[in-house]
Amino acid sequence: MTGSESRLTGPVRVVGVGLLGTSIALGLRARGVDVILSDASPTNVRIAIDYGAGRSAGDADEPQLIVVCVPPDVTASVIVRELSAYPRAVVTDVASVKAPILRAVRAAGADVTRYVGSHPLAGREKGGPMSGRADLFLGRPWVVAGHPDISYQTAAAVDDLILDLGASLVEMTTEQHDSSVALTSHAPQVVSTLMARRLVSAPEAAVNLAGGGLRDVTRVASSDPGLWVQILGANAGATAEVLRGVRDDLDEVLAALSAAADAQEDDAATGAAPWRRTLAETLSGGNAGVARIPGKHGQDRRYAQLVVMVDDRPGELARLLTELGEDGVNLEDLRLEHSPGAQIGLAEIAVLPETLDTVTSALAARGWRIAG
Amino acid sequence: MTGSESRLTGPVRVVGVGLLGTSIALGLRARGVDVILSDASPTNVRIAIDYGAGRSAGDADEPQLIVVCVPPDVTASVIVRELSAYPRAVVTDVASVKAPILRAVRAAGADVTRYVGSHPLAGREKGGPMSGRADLFLGRPWVVAGHPDISYQTAAAVDDLILDLGASLVEMTTEQHDSSVALTSHAPQVVSTLMARRLVSAPEAAVNLAGGGLRDVTRVASSDPGLWVQILGANAGATAEVLRGVRDDLDEVLAALSAAADAQEDDAATGAAPWRRTLAETLSGGNAGVARIPGKHGQDRRYAQLVVMVDDRPGELARLLTELGEDGVNLEDLRLEHSPGAQIGLAEIAVLPETLDTVTSALAARGWRIAG
Repeated sequence: MTGSESRLTGPVRVVGVGLLGTSIALGLRARGVDVILSDASPTNVRIAIDYGAGRSAGDADEPQLIVVCVPPDVTASVIVRELSAYPRAVVTDVASVKAPILRAVRAAGADVTRYVGSHPLAGREKGGPMSGRADLFLGRPWVVAGHPDISYQTAAAVDDLILDLGASLVEMTTEQHDSSVALTSHAPQVVSTLMARRLVSAPEAAVNLAGGGLRDVTRVASSDPGLWVQILGANAGATAEVLRGVRDDLDEVLAALSAAADAQEDDAATGAAPWRRTLAETLSGGNAGVARIPGKHGQDRRYAQLVVMVDDRPGELARLLTELGEDGVNLEDLRLEHSPGAQIGLAEIAVLPETLDTVTSALAARGWRIAG
Repeated sequence: MTGSESRLTGPVRVVGVGLLGTSIALGLRARGVDVILSDASPTNVRIAIDYGAGRSAGDADEPQLIVVCVPPDVTASVIVRELSAYPRAVVTDVASVKAPILRAVRAAGADVTRYVGSHPLAGREKGGPMSGRADLFLGRPWVVAGHPDISYQTAAAVDDLILDLGASLVEMTTEQHDSSVALTSHAPQVVSTLMARRLVSAPEAAVNLAGGGLRDVTRVASSDPGLWVQILGANAGATAEVLRGVRDDLDEVLAALSAAADAQEDDAATGAAPWRRTLAETLSGGNAGVARIPGKHGQDRRYAQLVVMVDDRPGELARLLTELGEDGVNLEDLRLEHSPGAQIGLAEIAVLPETLDTVTSALAARGWRIAG
């Protein structure tokens, strides 16, 4: 991106030089924008400057735009401070919850005609300046959470920021944003965590039967508790609303499972039973929900899956992909899985359904073992 | 594996030629074992024979071992029938629930001194003969669910089957097995389904914010409802026990979120609050649970993650992996993710932590963009 024109004129002041702040700064620097860096830690500012993310603040600074990239629990107070310190600047932030921040900024009597919140769905909200990358936001959704008190013209600076960084602009109200991320991020975090907690006191032999399904469901449960207490606390209402739906469905499933267990005891499980219908409807609902998640390139199509066995040594997976490339196959998705104890990996490949037979034959002809 | 010696002497009768039955048959044929195929569908038997999985049954058959690979809801009755039809054969099955099947076989008055259930943790329980693969079980755990009425010597035929197919033998009681898979497979299926169901009536704009976390949590929710009604129904008691733990924790989280939402309204969220402690403990418990899932090669170590941007065209990923191979890097794990709308993929690479800096520098030197 170096040397390309920017929409923003700058200077842009970035407050908080963690992963997100530093990535924003680096992306703007790559477009030639003057970036001013600020952080509660002078050491972090020093590192970010050495890293090429911008310069330190000066008394005569007149920033066009201020981007607040600090932890969620201090975001509102930093916004209020910045609005007051720079009375001509537009201010935005990148925290993952929007309505409570706007409410707190309003409650503090700050000038909300110059503040509009935003949220890039990219990266983690944790990590030092050294984890920053200029192209972190490329192609990622970035929500601007509008409100009635900021003019279209003023808010345009935030749109410019998003487009300069190559992200995909999404407009929502703060409430729409918060209920959307409660559904797609915050409730899934809780659900994953609750499943993972069940493993804490489980026998070793049980945990050793873990497969890809359990790994998928519990992957995000390894996220940072300190950060997530802030996020869940800030979006408590919207997250609870999604989770109450989960709890109500779970109670129905538990009732159905109790009925099924009783029927089994009575050895009468062969006839029609309401529990069977409840489970079937719940599971079908899950199918329908997954089908709504957009796939690659925003399309909703399904890909054909192919699992290829790959010896666990350097170069083998590269050889597989080189040979697929030679055959003109473009992978739609790829995933490598290792069984515990195995010296063989399973490469799960997604291809266009109409190419599956050709790809399978070509791989088999080259001696690859297809695992199913 | 062709031509290698087998532990089993055969013949082995496989009842049900879906993915699992056909894969078992193909694996045994590759070791030279005489395999007899049976299925409720003569067409499926014909296909499996054409596929090289074995031969059709004859009146003089004296199978050493019978492997029942039919859907869970008919498994017990087929076992009973086979025990009676072949009074010298050892019988096993591959259904994913074990205690109710043993109970039903006993209740039918069948000869359980020749029956022991088993469960390979591989593949899906669905799919026709054409999806069968001789090496489906290589390196996968395969549980033998023992009981007091079968002698060690008789059960050895099932051990031989497992070892002949290259799987990893795990011994458990039927109850241990069922509670283990309730934890590692059946409860995660329900949890994933319940989260996915929340998406059914969600606004399009919300679903479009879906990221990798939601995709992971809901992936298994796309499983076949018909099969899962059978599995959950058969393992209802053990699955409900795990899910009651989830429900109790969920109620605690909901109470904490309500308290957090109230505190926010009161603008008093800055002090110490019990809800914050509840959320922190829950999230930390999730961390601890995930840490117990064995990783690659059965070890419990953590890998360092690296995300590399890969242009979405044939050969690019292969070039990345070839260059990693040239640098002597062995990937511990690999995953390719596409952002909706983006023409760029993100290859998530896991490497040994001590090699992270070297790998990152080497990739950057070759011009690869590291995304975080």
